[in-house]
Amino acid sequence: MNKNNYVVGIVGATGAVGQELVRLMHERNFPLRELRLFASARSAGKVVERNGQQLTIAEARPGAFAGVDLAFFAAGGPVTRALAADAVKDGCLVIDKSSALRMDPKVPLVIPEINPQELRRHAGLIANPNCSTAVMLMGLWPLHQKFGVKRIIVSTYQSVSGTGAEAVRELEDQVQAHAAGRPVTHKIYPYQIAFNCIPQVDSFDATGYTGEETKMAQESRKIMDLPDLKVSATCVRVPVVRAHSISVSAEFERSVNLAEARAAVAAFSGAELVDEPANKKYPTPLDFAEKVKCGVGRLRVDSAFENGLSFWVSGDNLWKGAALNAVQNAELMIREGWLQAKR
Amino acid sequence: MNKNNYVVGIVGATGAVGQELVRLMHERNFPLRELRLFASARSAGKVVERNGQQLTIAEARPGAFAGVDLAFFAAGGPVTRALAADAVKDGCLVIDKSSALRMDPKVPLVIPEINPQELRRHAGLIANPNCSTAVMLMGLWPLHQKFGVKRIIVSTYQSVSGTGAEAVRELEDQVQAHAAGRPVTHKIYPYQIAFNCIPQVDSFDATGYTGEETKMAQESRKIMDLPDLKVSATCVRVPVVRAHSISVSAEFERSVNLAEARAAVAAFSGAELVDEPANKKYPTPLDFAEKVKCGVGRLRVDSAFENGLSFWVSGDNLWKGAALNAVQNAELMIREGWLQAKR
Repeated sequence: MNKNNYVVGIVGATGAVGQELVRLMHERNFPLRELRLFASARSAGKVVERNGQQLTIAEARPGAFAGVDLAFFAAGGPVTRALAADAVKDGCLVIDKSSALRMDPKVPLVIPEINPQELRRHAGLIANPNCSTAVMLMGLWPLHQKFGVKRIIVSTYQSVSGTGAEAVRELEDQVQAHAAGRPVTHKIYPYQIAFNCIPQVDSFDATGYTGEETKMAQESRKIMDLPDLKVSATCVRVPVVRAHSISVSAEFERSVNLAEARAAVAAFSGAELVDEPANKKYPTPLDFAEKVKCGVGRLRVDSAFENGLSFWVSGDNLWKGAALNAVQNAELMIREGWLQAKR
Repeated sequence: MNKNNYVVGIVGATGAVGQELVRLMHERNFPLRELRLFASARSAGKVVERNGQQLTIAEARPGAFAGVDLAFFAAGGPVTRALAADAVKDGCLVIDKSSALRMDPKVPLVIPEINPQELRRHAGLIANPNCSTAVMLMGLWPLHQKFGVKRIIVSTYQSVSGTGAEAVRELEDQVQAHAAGRPVTHKIYPYQIAFNCIPQVDSFDATGYTGEETKMAQESRKIMDLPDLKVSATCVRVPVVRAHSISVSAEFERSVNLAEARAAVAAFSGAELVDEPANKKYPTPLDFAEKVKCGVGRLRVDSAFENGLSFWVSGDNLWKGAALNAVQNAELMIREGWLQAKR
């Protein structure tokens, strides 16, 4: 066993993102010395099989992170708020998937293809963006680098796996009920999601925006370091199991052209350009579920703005939108020598 | 039988819109003297039951419209181009659902709640808007009247019934195959539509826009008489059976406020305001299938623009987006005395 390998903890190991974290670390040969799974007291003591190993789930509680080099937190904001500071005190680097810390000025919010330098200034905590933000920026960032983005208007087409495993079951149950001619019921979402669109992701604030819409605006500004970026977002749940899609119209500082826009996207490591309208080639969520890169297509000059471009992006909300981005952040820190194993 | 009743023809009577036309005329007590169904030679001679009546389908061909006061054309652009002028020559008023005539400056393109006065200047031909355009304008028009619209950025969530009855069957077949664990196949759409989003509605032009996107821009300008309106549209097919939804971000001339915006929408005859975020009340396509009005909600001030408002609208693409708008145009002409029965 390599002495540079890491003791890694996963908090929320039984959830949708937690399971993807385990899978991705295995598939990407993450330098693991030991994997420790944490969950709520309810799941503690359970033995689960992951990648052929029997692992016992421990309770996520203060003191549990002593000896852990790196912990991925994927159990939601309340758990991060309750336990992340304690883990940091025990010398553990926390890479958090929740929204709890993202807008804290002391916490870097990082997509490694965009602002990797931010990883150096952490104080034990690193945040990962909201799923829709991460997927959108895989299309927007290369165009911004080329033309300088000023304003974006986005509408999302978000899959049910973003809500969690129980929402995936709800859609499946509704489809099975429909197919069998039984009444369709719902519990997770306020309305039936099968054969429907629900223009609400997260809860509403007093201005009429949802948390998801506000996150897309605030996090895009922080990650791209564009505090004055104008953002209009409408977030919508659609009956797709996995991978979010986003329709983006963007206004830029400099004059745009399609050939340069396509070349910029094609050259960007986070994106796969799928853009041949004449051959009906464009990304769809079905094609970009369980893909490392996000698919970008439907690029076109948008004459509603002076220097406008519109595009469509599809990407896996559980991967680039969550677990993959977190693992990529850790991989980059290891590669750059910014994360040392304690033993 | 009232001598002011009309001999009405329906061209494309076996299609999705044609069937809705028959149903709506019956439900709305359209003043019918006689209903004549027309379709292609393939369907001619078939006897169908409509509202308890046995009707024989006649072939839509030159000369078939002699004695018809009013014909709804719902069989697509090629049939309109082939037969509409001939019907007009025979003294028949043609109310067309296809896109063939919409942008002809001599042909009024009418939504009766918006530009009814245009119905007076027809020369035998009246066009109806594209389904997405009609549904969108049920939210935009009252806001425009209040604040003066300059620019709109829209993304659509379009149901498969907009493609036709065979696409409704394709989605249903895919869902049944999924539920039974059988392989999912596709023929009508270039990709599976169940559990997917397809960012293509209609075919692409050389600029990378689809016909549907171009229609939304051009038709909105014509119907609202705003030739300089800036429009950016992204049209997307989603796995919904019936009713289109549209996410709209709009910039206005005058300063906006939410209370006046909501009041304007609530007072508009084409819209039903469903906008209580605190109670999770907003329109969904499932709720607005087979509704006369379109549902408008998620109204909010949009700070990405100087005077910005965003909203969400859901409306029945076969009704306000097609058959209902056509029937409403005819009803208004009859009410105003602009259409006389020949006999």
